[in-house]
Amino acid sequence: MVGPGGIDALIQLLAKLPGLGPRSARRAALHLLKRRESLMEPLARALRDTADSVKTCSVCHNIDTVDPCSICTDPKRDRSQICVVEDIGDLWAMERVAGFRGLYHVLGGTLSALDGVGPEDLHVGGLVERARHPDVKEVVLATNATVDGQTTAHYIAERLAGTDVTVSGLAHGVPVGGELDYLDEGTITAALKARKPV
Amino acid sequence: MVGPGGIDALIQLLAKLPGLGPRSARRAALHLLKRRESLMEPLARALRDTADSVKTCSVCHNIDTVDPCSICTDPKRDRSQICVVEDIGDLWAMERVAGFRGLYHVLGGTLSALDGVGPEDLHVGGLVERARHPDVKEVVLATNATVDGQTTAHYIAERLAGTDVTVSGLAHGVPVGGELDYLDEGTITAALKARKPV
Repeated sequence: MVGPGGIDALIQLLAKLPGLGPRSARRAALHLLKRRESLMEPLARALRDTADSVKTCSVCHNIDTVDPCSICTDPKRDRSQICVVEDIGDLWAMERVAGFRGLYHVLGGTLSALDGVGPEDLHVGGLVERARHPDVKEVVLATNATVDGQTTAHYIAERLAGTDVTVSGLAHGVPVGGELDYLDEGTITAALKARKPV
Repeated sequence: MVGPGGIDALIQLLAKLPGLGPRSARRAALHLLKRRESLMEPLARALRDTADSVKTCSVCHNIDTVDPCSICTDPKRDRSQICVVEDIGDLWAMERVAGFRGLYHVLGGTLSALDGVGPEDLHVGGLVERARHPDVKEVVLATNATVDGQTTAHYIAERLAGTDVTVSGLAHGVPVGGELDYLDEGTITAALKARKPV
């Protein structure tokens, strides 16, 4: 027995969150139980409200409380650029740096022969359709710099070959603050190839 | 902007859980949003139900859905022993090993000059009262082996001096599986002092 009935169930659910194991789920549950009004009830409400209100955007497959999402309908965003990301987490990462003011397209994964993910499992058809819109000038491929991510980027670039858009990809190189000694050969080779006059 | 309105609020609440920072809270939120029916809604319900039903036991200050708690009212538990712990997490830890079949008393912290915690802030009075009951033969002090924990144990032992109960404490020594090379001097000294014939 870890705790009484209802608390046990709560701990088991918390332990399913990424980053929480059985021990940290117990600590989290205890933390919540000690802050019933300031944390536990607001969290229960936030989960309830978000579960009820969140939808997937039918245009870009982002999640939001409205469909189409607030990025797709924002009049201040640049409608000539579409940034292609694997997952919603990647979209959030792009939004945090605030360096991109265009629209997004969430693929929902990458092509993967091992996991049996083919083009029909990703939202590629919708992207090609969006790229045909006369407003769209550039598609920025921001899939992860993994083998699967780069394979997917390559496949999408091919699919977009028939449209008028420019297809670009994120630059590879030494991460800011990175030390050469800790970097893999692939990154150093890419950084060397893409070297620029200073 | 990290995510749309309601999701941002959810991430901020998740980030208040111990073990989750801003980054892992985002991952947890995304994980929940992708498993709306299998995880997000059950978690919202479990939080709601637990927040509504959990009470503090008026006898031992454990938390449970009933008051007095299920340990205090369990007829199979040995009513002659009371184990004194700092916190409910410590009570759970004791219950996991299932080596103790007596009752508990949760202090709600330790004496701490630095944090300004005095005897009146802990549930010591109730413990002394419980120890006077003729059924109670032994009080096991299981406060943590920290300076504050041991100071508190010492103080409680003094307060219980006027009663008829035997006061005992957990043994100190080398943890099972522990290596001498990695242990502090205090632990080795304690283990050496308490050495036993093999």
